[in-house]
Amino acid sequence: MAKKDTPKLRIIPLGGLGEIGKNMTVIEYGNDIIAVDCGLAFPDEDMLGIDMVIPDMSYLELNEDKLRAFIITHGHEDHIGAIPYALQKFHTPVYGTKFTLALIDHKLHEHRIDDADLRCIEAGDTIEIGCFRIEFIKVSHSIAGAVALAITTPVGILVHTGDFKVDYTPIDNEPIDINSFARYGSKGVLALMMDSTNAESAGVTPSETELGKTFEKVFNEAKGRIIVASFASNVYRIQQVCDIAIAHDRVICFQGRSMVVIAKIAKDLGYLHIPEDRIVPLEKLKNYEPERVCVLTTGSQGESMSGLFRMANANHKLIIGKGDTVVISASAIPGNEKSVGRVINQLFQRGADVVYDRLADVHVSGHARREELKLMFRLLKPRYFIPVHGEARHLHHHAHLAEEMGIKPNNIFIMDTGNVLEITKRSAKLNGSVASGAILVDGSGVGDIGSTVLRERKLLSQDGLFAIVIPVQRQTGELLGVPELVTKGFIYMKDSDQLISEAKQFAFDLAFKLNQKNKNDWNSFRNGMKNGMKNFLLSKTGRVPIILPIILEVDC
Amino acid sequence: MAKKDTPKLRIIPLGGLGEIGKNMTVIEYGNDIIAVDCGLAFPDEDMLGIDMVIPDMSYLELNEDKLRAFIITHGHEDHIGAIPYALQKFHTPVYGTKFTLALIDHKLHEHRIDDADLRCIEAGDTIEIGCFRIEFIKVSHSIAGAVALAITTPVGILVHTGDFKVDYTPIDNEPIDINSFARYGSKGVLALMMDSTNAESAGVTPSETELGKTFEKVFNEAKGRIIVASFASNVYRIQQVCDIAIAHDRVICFQGRSMVVIAKIAKDLGYLHIPEDRIVPLEKLKNYEPERVCVLTTGSQGESMSGLFRMANANHKLIIGKGDTVVISASAIPGNEKSVGRVINQLFQRGADVVYDRLADVHVSGHARREELKLMFRLLKPRYFIPVHGEARHLHHHAHLAEEMGIKPNNIFIMDTGNVLEITKRSAKLNGSVASGAILVDGSGVGDIGSTVLRERKLLSQDGLFAIVIPVQRQTGELLGVPELVTKGFIYMKDSDQLISEAKQFAFDLAFKLNQKNKNDWNSFRNGMKNGMKNFLLSKTGRVPIILPIILEVDC
Repeated sequence: MAKKDTPKLRIIPLGGLGEIGKNMTVIEYGNDIIAVDCGLAFPDEDMLGIDMVIPDMSYLELNEDKLRAFIITHGHEDHIGAIPYALQKFHTPVYGTKFTLALIDHKLHEHRIDDADLRCIEAGDTIEIGCFRIEFIKVSHSIAGAVALAITTPVGILVHTGDFKVDYTPIDNEPIDINSFARYGSKGVLALMMDSTNAESAGVTPSETELGKTFEKVFNEAKGRIIVASFASNVYRIQQVCDIAIAHDRVICFQGRSMVVIAKIAKDLGYLHIPEDRIVPLEKLKNYEPERVCVLTTGSQGESMSGLFRMANANHKLIIGKGDTVVISASAIPGNEKSVGRVINQLFQRGADVVYDRLADVHVSGHARREELKLMFRLLKPRYFIPVHGEARHLHHHAHLAEEMGIKPNNIFIMDTGNVLEITKRSAKLNGSVASGAILVDGSGVGDIGSTVLRERKLLSQDGLFAIVIPVQRQTGELLGVPELVTKGFIYMKDSDQLISEAKQFAFDLAFKLNQKNKNDWNSFRNGMKNGMKNFLLSKTGRVPIILPIILEVDC
Repeated sequence: MAKKDTPKLRIIPLGGLGEIGKNMTVIEYGNDIIAVDCGLAFPDEDMLGIDMVIPDMSYLELNEDKLRAFIITHGHEDHIGAIPYALQKFHTPVYGTKFTLALIDHKLHEHRIDDADLRCIEAGDTIEIGCFRIEFIKVSHSIAGAVALAITTPVGILVHTGDFKVDYTPIDNEPIDINSFARYGSKGVLALMMDSTNAESAGVTPSETELGKTFEKVFNEAKGRIIVASFASNVYRIQQVCDIAIAHDRVICFQGRSMVVIAKIAKDLGYLHIPEDRIVPLEKLKNYEPERVCVLTTGSQGESMSGLFRMANANHKLIIGKGDTVVISASAIPGNEKSVGRVINQLFQRGADVVYDRLADVHVSGHARREELKLMFRLLKPRYFIPVHGEARHLHHHAHLAEEMGIKPNNIFIMDTGNVLEITKRSAKLNGSVASGAILVDGSGVGDIGSTVLRERKLLSQDGLFAIVIPVQRQTGELLGVPELVTKGFIYMKDSDQLISEAKQFAFDLAFKLNQKNKNDWNSFRNGMKNGMKNFLLSKTGRVPIILPIILEVDC
């Protein structure tokens, strides 16, 4: 009996497993819970109108008394994006490095949350939270301030890599701290949770500094302005481009909202080093010859409101044209290929020269490939392994790799969001699930849009809506005249007089007939109208709009 | 004056320039017009609900008396998909190879067109149409029966490659007929129109037979069923997989509608050679051990109705699971990356092993890369060059390549759909444009959906619709009671009692106020309702649905 009461270490991913996005992992022992990361996901294309997706945190709500801290590995949206929503529910401290917290702080400000308890840590720091001792270990990634976590728990050491790659020659000269990983490996690691994003890819991800060669070439050859689009949070990329631009006697102009904001934060915090006199606002760019200008902008994913998109569409004060060289320093995130391609086409049509990943090495990933993952397996020698941060395919390949690296198949756990893994000193097993899933955020509504509404949006987007308003006498249920028809997204009504008048006649006849048959049975009436009109419109147009019969009861 | 009357060769692309899709080119001289290809494009993601896009053919309608023939280079949808629509307008012969015509015939049958004048040609044939002499030249491509065109015109020879690659070791042992291209090159080619799809890619596209190695490996290692998803029209791929399957003592089962249909057509016409007793229907597959089964199916693009998608979703009699090996023998077409990725994830989740382009060489393109394009330039030595079949980026790179190959920049024409290129024996120049563009097909409607309806669909898909029905007395314009509210895609009404009742009260008050102010001015009334409700809903939900005020005039 006593044995049964001994608490177990419980690992419960609330997001990020079987998907890339909304990372969040609950780590629980006895009366202590910490949540690692708290990210958002961007909506799938079938989540029409949805702004973002956040993890279902009801497990934390149920266990609010145990929740001690949010521990954030780095400041990408899929790791911090849901924090404002979490802090509306929980008054819990948030730990992160300086740059991570600055990005969180900016986000909280936008959500008008000003009482957050943000606690700054540095790589190398160790903190104690409840029964957990957590050391933060510097890792390389495509954002400044990324850390892995070595969590000493009552049953053993759990290492969570966060997102990482192994960069021996990073821009800031602060490489991944492999010695600390080695130290934990020598102590003995009970369980490892590791980034699976690039588990399909052989070899190693090149160092950020490798890109210098390509940029040097572009800057040597370009005769006009150079416009570089990248992720605003990739401070290393921005530093590198700025250094090369300055060496080529160009001034720097930041464009695009997040680029301007994040560059400022990074400069203020000392992550970005650019002499003040080399930064020029847009209005003053005209004082410089084209060959002395370098613009850094957002839009590497072809986003329709971004700087680059607007420049390519002549919807920006800076219009791209002949003589300009545009570098798209990113890879298209799955789902964005078409929008990126469209921007590239527009830039070529405007006469610009465009350099992108298909043509030159203008981007490196921030995630470890297989040889780097192998290094981690060898350094850490974990007993248990849980691949994280990946879709099913990535987790699968990462699990296979773990097997190749000598981890016993029974000690590898491909988890799904919501699964509970229970670990003791001597055993680990999956034990059920907790409530979990995707909470849709639309406008100010959090979680109020479900599958019914999404299905309606999908149908509306396909063939639009056809409304039939039928006035009836409230007391007698008698029709009070001809139905009114209104459509949206179905047909251009002004060009469709004939169809509309035929439909009106048909609706009137049908309403009359149904009304005779289903006196005051408005459900049958409504269904009869729906089906009848559906068949009518299908035969006339081959389309099936949402049919919306509205029965308006009038007293008179 | 006499000179001015001499007709010029006019080349007018009606589609396929600045886009990949809906290829169609008008070639005109004096009183003769031929149209090369007649394809469809798949709708962009912002063309909500649209089934397909076809070229605007109004130029041909204006010149119907000159139109002599449709010449089809091969049977892919982007080259034949608009033929049913064209033949509803024009009674014009259609020329193509046996396989191309069989695919067209199948399509016409579905459109219930049975009076088409289809004329079969073979590679090597020469036909005379009006003032044009056209020789069909065998090319390699990812479909059987693909040909290029050498068109002898009164001003000189025009070569149109169609879609092609250079495959020296094709599956059917009928390589591209480079000797014929050489023959025309020696005669002297006035103008060349060449496939630009892979103009960004260095080197050569590997031969179809190269895939044999990968398939051999897969078939050697797989212990259960093998399911291969590919394009149904890639007869060579299907032949190769079948040959290897049979050599490994497996039976073949075709699944997915287009795979079944096209495989049958290809077998009947002698393009596909499979012993009848090796083909097994789905019902009889259970009589064979898993290691004796190979299924060929559609779904390589993750299409939601395809065989593979349904197998991965357990929505098919054949359910994929542990022990099965799935080969996705295609690359995701831009825009399909996410759906393909989703199917791969589902297959891994079901326990299958999945082989796809990220991991192994399971696909080769059907389009020539730069070294193959260079071969064509050297063989044909054209005076004028028009890159075709490509987005702006591809045309741009192809034009650059042409320059590298010694074609004078002034003799290279990057055309846009609708542009007119006029060529004489000694000169070529762009001269204006004709009506052209994208005709949207939705259901049975061709061209009746325009930007207004698309915009409505977009808005409906974002935040749905909020309808307010307001009954008024026809004669007096007085309100007859409380407005009725109906929403679709906005909010789940059953869970939103409070919002709906607040909105109802607000709408009633607003309607009353507006009615007082704008007696019988229903436009102002409607606008007032729209704006008022919009602000109300925005403040309450952060969303902006389409607001649809319907004023129902009632006699009573």
